[in-house]
Amino acid sequence: MTISEIAKLAGVSSAAVSRYLNDGSLSQEKRQRIEKVIRETNYRPSEYARTMRTKKSNRIGVLVPQIDSEAVPKILSGISERMDQKNYHVLLMNSNLSLEKEIGILETFEQSQVDGLIFVASILTKRHEVALAHMGVPVVILGQKSDRYPCIYHDDEGAACAMMTELLKSGCRHPAYIGVDRRDKAAGKSRYQGVCRALETYGLHMDEIAYREATFSVQAGYQAMEQILAEEKRPDGVLCATDMIAAGVLSCLSERKIAVPEKMKVAGMGHGAIADLLCPRLTTVHYHYHTSGREAADLLLDLMRKKKPRQEARMLEYEIIRQKTT
Amino acid sequence: MTISEIAKLAGVSSAAVSRYLNDGSLSQEKRQRIEKVIRETNYRPSEYARTMRTKKSNRIGVLVPQIDSEAVPKILSGISERMDQKNYHVLLMNSNLSLEKEIGILETFEQSQVDGLIFVASILTKRHEVALAHMGVPVVILGQKSDRYPCIYHDDEGAACAMMTELLKSGCRHPAYIGVDRRDKAAGKSRYQGVCRALETYGLHMDEIAYREATFSVQAGYQAMEQILAEEKRPDGVLCATDMIAAGVLSCLSERKIAVPEKMKVAGMGHGAIADLLCPRLTTVHYHYHTSGREAADLLLDLMRKKKPRQEARMLEYEIIRQKTT
Repeated sequence: MTISEIAKLAGVSSAAVSRYLNDGSLSQEKRQRIEKVIRETNYRPSEYARTMRTKKSNRIGVLVPQIDSEAVPKILSGISERMDQKNYHVLLMNSNLSLEKEIGILETFEQSQVDGLIFVASILTKRHEVALAHMGVPVVILGQKSDRYPCIYHDDEGAACAMMTELLKSGCRHPAYIGVDRRDKAAGKSRYQGVCRALETYGLHMDEIAYREATFSVQAGYQAMEQILAEEKRPDGVLCATDMIAAGVLSCLSERKIAVPEKMKVAGMGHGAIADLLCPRLTTVHYHYHTSGREAADLLLDLMRKKKPRQEARMLEYEIIRQKTT
Repeated sequence: MTISEIAKLAGVSSAAVSRYLNDGSLSQEKRQRIEKVIRETNYRPSEYARTMRTKKSNRIGVLVPQIDSEAVPKILSGISERMDQKNYHVLLMNSNLSLEKEIGILETFEQSQVDGLIFVASILTKRHEVALAHMGVPVVILGQKSDRYPCIYHDDEGAACAMMTELLKSGCRHPAYIGVDRRDKAAGKSRYQGVCRALETYGLHMDEIAYREATFSVQAGYQAMEQILAEEKRPDGVLCATDMIAAGVLSCLSERKIAVPEKMKVAGMGHGAIADLLCPRLTTVHYHYHTSGREAADLLLDLMRKKKPRQEARMLEYEIIRQKTT
């Protein structure tokens, strides 16, 4: 079914049908005749044609580092909730933790034709920024602070500082920290800095405590804890940069019959579903991932409408969840 | 930059540029001249124009019932892995467990213009089938068996039967079952039927055992277990239709100091990340979710290429994971 066929059936000009489809001005009578034909023929304007006309795709892109993780499904769920209300479709792209692939996706992104992009960033390099600069559509960065792009991020430094302070306050004298790759600005660098800040307040320094880097997995947490236990001085409290790492730590301590929290306190960060299911229940920091997805979506919607957003960079709050491991 | 502008700069006809862009036959010399212009002007063919020409969007749609769940992130990760290799983008749609919304998405799907659809189905009604019949692009159903559409599904009945048989074999005389809504054919009806089959082999009937329906959450599992414990006869083994329900059951039993597996055996289904982190580690059935995503993607790719797939309906295997709760 084409516009000219509808025009013929309705006894109007093609221009009239086109005006109808684009909400242009039209006499009541013509409008009714066109509507009748559209109803009877079940015509739906082709999206291709509409896109050609309006240059809008009603799609936004979401680039994530890994779909199957603790945070990303919650973030996606928040984004999708909001975009759905506004009739936007979400084009999902997954770099699967490959930096090369991630930059490749950003560089070729133009071809996938979206009206805007939410980039769930774990690592933000110069190359990312160059690729983003050529994007040609509004971009919102989620999960990392950026001076150049509108962003929604978590207070990683504040949260790590608060959680380590809790451990120290509750009597830990030999704390340990299991962090992640510091090229990851949020979970790596900022949380590390937060821990440093807390230690300093208590006259300690990162060099003096047991510190290990792990990947984002239960197994990596287990191994890091094994290494820490092999050292001369056993810590009396361990802060982990993620709940998954903390799950590995708990499993290692349970196998070695080291009582938590009596002999060793343990805390995670992220408040994933597992935190409440671990045994004992894990003390952790709650991040509002679903909210961050929703807020990023709102920010992008404002930018796509060329509306000045209230705030271009927004740091979300955190909440300490005190449970049974401290 | 348009095709005719490129043609002018390269000193060839527009038809030649068009043949070049569509991999048509062309003299070596013309090809090189066009390539040079494209390189120098940094021209990228507009996706809109390409779509108009080829009627292909290089996008597939994926409709899921809930993003933030145990299975869906794994399924999406499998789909995205395969589609990415084939240069397809994934348009993600989320019905958020609303049947109305799900059918609405299917009915208006045409407008989002994809070359194919993977429908991760939890419930499959007549209305779904009518909407799917009008889709106009190849459809693959994932997670439910369909007689009408190509599908990838799990052996839910076999898995539930095998898991309940394990409980009975290991000495349970008073088993209980916590299932989910039986309108959900896979997790609800099929698993229920599997349990019935196992019971019958041991001369038991579903009416004689404690049976409850729960939603897919830890809390619902907790409440169902509370209700079962309030009954006169206490069971000595509980099979749960999902690991999340089992997590709630374990938490309820732990609070009441009912020893697992000594006083009561517990088993889940799904083998989510939580199964290995629960305390004690949960005996469960492993479903190959990531694989199911990949297989559904392969099936859809075959259908989109109009290639007859090897198999139109494929049932995936399961694996019993014996851990500490049985």
